[in-house]
Amino acid sequence: MNTPTVRPSDRPSAVVLLSGGLDSATTLAIARAEGYQPHALSFRYGQRHAGELAAARAVAARLGVTRHEIAEIDLRAMGGSALTADIPVPQGRSDSAIAAGIPVTYVPARNTIFLAYALGWCEVLGAADIFIGVNAVDYSGYPDCRPEFIRAFEAVANLATKAGVEGHSRFRVHTPLIALSKAEIIRTGLALGVDYGLTRSCYSPDTAERACGKCDACRLRLKGFREAGIADPAPYVGIR
Amino acid sequence: MNTPTVRPSDRPSAVVLLSGGLDSATTLAIARAEGYQPHALSFRYGQRHAGELAAARAVAARLGVTRHEIAEIDLRAMGGSALTADIPVPQGRSDSAIAAGIPVTYVPARNTIFLAYALGWCEVLGAADIFIGVNAVDYSGYPDCRPEFIRAFEAVANLATKAGVEGHSRFRVHTPLIALSKAEIIRTGLALGVDYGLTRSCYSPDTAERACGKCDACRLRLKGFREAGIADPAPYVGIR
Repeated sequence: MNTPTVRPSDRPSAVVLLSGGLDSATTLAIARAEGYQPHALSFRYGQRHAGELAAARAVAARLGVTRHEIAEIDLRAMGGSALTADIPVPQGRSDSAIAAGIPVTYVPARNTIFLAYALGWCEVLGAADIFIGVNAVDYSGYPDCRPEFIRAFEAVANLATKAGVEGHSRFRVHTPLIALSKAEIIRTGLALGVDYGLTRSCYSPDTAERACGKCDACRLRLKGFREAGIADPAPYVGIR
Repeated sequence: MNTPTVRPSDRPSAVVLLSGGLDSATTLAIARAEGYQPHALSFRYGQRHAGELAAARAVAARLGVTRHEIAEIDLRAMGGSALTADIPVPQGRSDSAIAAGIPVTYVPARNTIFLAYALGWCEVLGAADIFIGVNAVDYSGYPDCRPEFIRAFEAVANLATKAGVEGHSRFRVHTPLIALSKAEIIRTGLALGVDYGLTRSCYSPDTAERACGKCDACRLRLKGFREAGIADPAPYVGIR
């Protein structure tokens, strides 16, 4: 397996949120290409599609990271989301239905919690840069994927931390995908050597971790590959 | 034991961050007195003084809460603080040393992480109010205890959430202690029936959960009781 190692250097450290999906894998590749030493951060939070963590490990190993941490957090105590509670994952929705509102798969305050952890790790590392693969184009239903949310979190980061207060660090939350279409994200990632066969996006894969092809995440992903004119190398159930 | 139960009512729900210390116990009493149905939220995050969670349970039971959740989170992966890593807790520091800088007991991004969880629970509950017992007077060294940090987090909350986006809820982070001295906090709590014998503040208690009387938290607490002209009912090691 081709696993480039990142050599210690003067390159600045950055914390990259890595779910194991297509967007975060691309974001990790961009952080590396921009010259950062990536510290990948994933979460085990009671998600039903825990196979994405195996994907995150594979992606981190293939692209090369300084360190990969999987933090254990418990969102189940709060309930309230199809990704962690017993609410059916919607399937076969139209693109307009996907775009129309906040999906039931929304996890309360998830990106706020993830960014807060990333901020803590940054502070320990002496890093000032967080990368997150949010996207405001294809998936506008999530409030915590919008640019104004990201800017507000940066303000919190600079007020919350010792580094911010002492002025030797200005935290920045990088969102390189925020204005890209899924097809543009895929083309960018391919140019940077991302193996999308390692990534997982599906909300309800089968026991062999094959994607359903029908949930919102699969539909957006497949549409992206179609528009990019490339076959999705990830495994799917049956014919698509 | 006198354990008042909170009856379901039209009173709005609020999430109250409850560490088991003096400040958060007082904050819980204030939230109840202001007419909220308190949902207490504590964290097990690898803290060495885990006895504070037993204190949190005792305080919640005594004051009465609608629900008390202890969320498991793991800050140890990040290291970097005397409260979770193997850095000695400073003892016997002067008041001016305590006030002078950010203490080594600072946990990276802790209040940001705690507030993010509280926000997630609020969203599930349909609640718009978070109470946190931060104080900018006695303990100015923590950047995430300052009013400007709290205001910035409120802005994040209103941008991050379905409820904020849809406009049916304006999140508010209540900080009733922020401008009070420790003596004022103690007098307020006593007037509201807080039993400070149940609370724990010490950073390095002995195995019987008796406070050391020497760490920064103990010194601030004892000074507060002295200034309030009241004996601290909590147990301490030896004579103080």
